[in-house]
Amino acid sequence: MSARVFINEVAPRDGFQIERDFVPTAAKIALIDDLSPLGFAKIEATSFTSPKAIPNLADAAEVMTGIQRQPGVDYVALIPNEKGVERALACGTDELNFVMSASDSHGRANLRMTANQSLERFEHMVALADGHNVFINASISTAFGCPFEGEVRPERVLEIVARAQARGIQGVTLCDTTGMANPRQVASLCAEALSRYPDMALTLHLHNTRGMGLANAFAGYEVGVMRFDAALGGLGGCPFAPGASGNVCTEDLVHMFEQMGVHTGVDLERLLGVAEQLPTLVGHDVPGQVVKAGTSQRRYPLPDAIG
Amino acid sequence: MSARVFINEVAPRDGFQIERDFVPTAAKIALIDDLSPLGFAKIEATSFTSPKAIPNLADAAEVMTGIQRQPGVDYVALIPNEKGVERALACGTDELNFVMSASDSHGRANLRMTANQSLERFEHMVALADGHNVFINASISTAFGCPFEGEVRPERVLEIVARAQARGIQGVTLCDTTGMANPRQVASLCAEALSRYPDMALTLHLHNTRGMGLANAFAGYEVGVMRFDAALGGLGGCPFAPGASGNVCTEDLVHMFEQMGVHTGVDLERLLGVAEQLPTLVGHDVPGQVVKAGTSQRRYPLPDAIG
Repeated sequence: MSARVFINEVAPRDGFQIERDFVPTAAKIALIDDLSPLGFAKIEATSFTSPKAIPNLADAAEVMTGIQRQPGVDYVALIPNEKGVERALACGTDELNFVMSASDSHGRANLRMTANQSLERFEHMVALADGHNVFINASISTAFGCPFEGEVRPERVLEIVARAQARGIQGVTLCDTTGMANPRQVASLCAEALSRYPDMALTLHLHNTRGMGLANAFAGYEVGVMRFDAALGGLGGCPFAPGASGNVCTEDLVHMFEQMGVHTGVDLERLLGVAEQLPTLVGHDVPGQVVKAGTSQRRYPLPDAIG
Repeated sequence: MSARVFINEVAPRDGFQIERDFVPTAAKIALIDDLSPLGFAKIEATSFTSPKAIPNLADAAEVMTGIQRQPGVDYVALIPNEKGVERALACGTDELNFVMSASDSHGRANLRMTANQSLERFEHMVALADGHNVFINASISTAFGCPFEGEVRPERVLEIVARAQARGIQGVTLCDTTGMANPRQVASLCAEALSRYPDMALTLHLHNTRGMGLANAFAGYEVGVMRFDAALGGLGGCPFAPGASGNVCTEDLVHMFEQMGVHTGVDLERLLGVAEQLPTLVGHDVPGQVVKAGTSQRRYPLPDAIG
């Protein structure tokens, strides 16, 4: 177990992409600029995808070029295809986060590609980025289960990691896209991935769909995972799991780690200040807990009756 | 780690006691009767406390004598004092759950007693129960932190456990009364308590105030805790932590353990059926997640577009 973890804030991409109302470009930029000085390792700022597929992120280039880059923070964009690579590179994106699904039915539904087709495509996408100084990550959706197929075999996921690595991918994110993972499963798959591919930067992307988000993060941490995606306020979710909670909430995750004595680098107090503004920005309540309850350090005055 | 855990359903006591509206006695009895056949080890049915202190549980005797006892289930009552012992014994309660606070300021605020005073009182209360065939447990509030004082030293909690055992208490529940605990702390204190007092039945009582409820349950499980309190729907909370989530949600906890391959004895599908009725019973939404999202086994039809 490390005494340090690295947080990738994904709300601007994974959160805003499914909001009912378009978040204005200026508001997106302002939020990222508020988050940038708080100590995140990475901020996933947008996705260079088709505006038809995700209208909410049609302003990807404006966002990526409009933000104030903070030294030490890597600005990430989700990339579904070659065109996305070109658009992201043109904006000076620090990290390209390719996306694929471990399960073919989810891949077809979400990206119109099987896992094999995605991996072939990755080869061309990596080639396009060659010579640019970018980190290339691949997010593997449904790594812990598929809402259509059910179980996704760990061996299949591990094989995808190996094949991604062979194609020049430098990091992989194992995504519990619809919150199906449990702590034992997270511990088992992550321990195996870390042991087999020690050179591959491994990130966990967790959802709190069934309340297990922080339990899964703790389980991953315990077997050596040091990188975590999380979304401010617990924004996000999955169109295939309606009614469910969203991503693991950044401020709740940071709070848990800091309480455990694990350094996140993130300024929690300032983060909570930003999180407090989120319901106003998106126009609805969000699932985060710490912003409502205060941190574990919060003290209450003694009731009057007893002095 | 055991492949079996035991769940104590506490919503009828810890949940209903802080509801704004009195839950009618018949509805309390009906809920307990619905829960009784589902496989719980225990159900905390009520508290034999002063009706002035907790008006919502003024019907303790009616509830305890009105329910249909299921063989194999222990029906528990929370007991603050000698009078409570007498009332509970008169109703044939299976287990008396004495309550005290590890921190003196919380003890004074909640019970008008310091930890020392509570432990002295326990001696008389145990004596009163002598000769009756009842199990005697003590719930230690603020075992992981006090909303007034902050840190509660682990050594203080462990000493309380020892002194409770010396007074004839057969089981202790370490309570994270206001959801201040983190997984590392839970693992550490529980491991130490299990190691020092192997003959003492240890239960964890967790709140999800800051989103860490299931993470703490997993952490406790990993070091050998086999008994967990939980409340249907995640009802409950603490008057000293307003705005916060309540107890760890029973159906979410059972779901997590069953997904991990850990047997709870509880019929999750039927439990979810009961949980679905809870918002109607209490007149408000409740925090439970699995009842909204479905279990991790839930499958979705493929989107039409891709057949």
